[in-house]
Amino acid sequence: MGKATADITMSLDGFIAGPNDRPGNGLGDGGEVLHEWVYGLKSWREPHGLEGGATGEDADILDEAMSAVGAVVLGRWMYECAEGWGDDPPFRVPVFVVTHDARDREDKGETSFTFVTNGIESALDQAGAAAGDKNVSIAGGASIIRQYLSAGLLDEIQIHVAPVLLGQGKRLFEGTGGDQIKLETARVVDSPAVTHLKYSVVK
Amino acid sequence: MGKATADITMSLDGFIAGPNDRPGNGLGDGGEVLHEWVYGLKSWREPHGLEGGATGEDADILDEAMSAVGAVVLGRWMYECAEGWGDDPPFRVPVFVVTHDARDREDKGETSFTFVTNGIESALDQAGAAAGDKNVSIAGGASIIRQYLSAGLLDEIQIHVAPVLLGQGKRLFEGTGGDQIKLETARVVDSPAVTHLKYSVVK
Repeated sequence: MGKATADITMSLDGFIAGPNDRPGNGLGDGGEVLHEWVYGLKSWREPHGLEGGATGEDADILDEAMSAVGAVVLGRWMYECAEGWGDDPPFRVPVFVVTHDARDREDKGETSFTFVTNGIESALDQAGAAAGDKNVSIAGGASIIRQYLSAGLLDEIQIHVAPVLLGQGKRLFEGTGGDQIKLETARVVDSPAVTHLKYSVVK
Repeated sequence: MGKATADITMSLDGFIAGPNDRPGNGLGDGGEVLHEWVYGLKSWREPHGLEGGATGEDADILDEAMSAVGAVVLGRWMYECAEGWGDDPPFRVPVFVVTHDARDREDKGETSFTFVTNGIESALDQAGAAAGDKNVSIAGGASIIRQYLSAGLLDEIQIHVAPVLLGQGKRLFEGTGGDQIKLETARVVDSPAVTHLKYSVVK
């Protein structure tokens, strides 16, 4: 496999969703402001079956992140949110769901969902095998990204900082009290809509 | 006065100090990693009475932020931490301390401390009058910056994002549950040591 990466939009005050996030309301109350930068982009609209959209730096970064992904790992929570995406989810690569509940593999459109009950390391191994030379994206939610970070299994994290203070909601970094994790700035790109901060995790 | 600004270093996971921060340990346990980017800069060392130091983009940004400041507002907590800075604190402008305890004005070196007991608005008014055309820096701690933000009294905020996940400590943004606050990206500058994110607060 390539790298294990995470790619997520966060408000400047650290939230990745507003309050009351749940399946059907995955971004929480008022959380759609986080993703305003993305909805108008061609590279977001296309895989979601929508026409048109903007090109440019933000679109290129989204496209770069998505085209590098050969397999995806999701937490159970994020999968439940993603269930609302219907019969053709936008992943279009093998998806591995970390869960306690054994289930048969599901195929929806070009996306497969494999349910992994023996932990995050196994999920990454399976996703890595499926990804070939490409990256494995730890696509969320927050909890599973934190678990991979804490376990030293994440190579790279890209945070898209939305220019807003949500004031409440679900945090990406909960402050779990663990050791410090050092990062190395890999790239910073800013546009009026969002600032893309890409870091390598120092191991 | 010019603008009401705040300028503070934060870890990517939102902490401005490690745990157990207190006067004498203002950055908390393990928090000095946040300010690693600053200690070696000429524009930091000079006002702290130290010789030498690096020039360049990070130094310029620090210098820009400091030279624009005509007066400073501190919370009581930050003042208590600052008391440890001795007889010649590095502010060298009039400082207004928001507190419940009335005290006489103190002069230490080129810095004066005026204690304001009738609220943040009054402190900003007094600091504004003292600042002339220059900016008023709401210099911390976190609580006083949040109070000015919530009251709609802050014009600009610059966050220096240190490439580290502290995992625990004191947050800049506590998630007080208030309304969303929209920001406009004013400038982004990155170096290997730190990323400077400057925002205007949309009112």
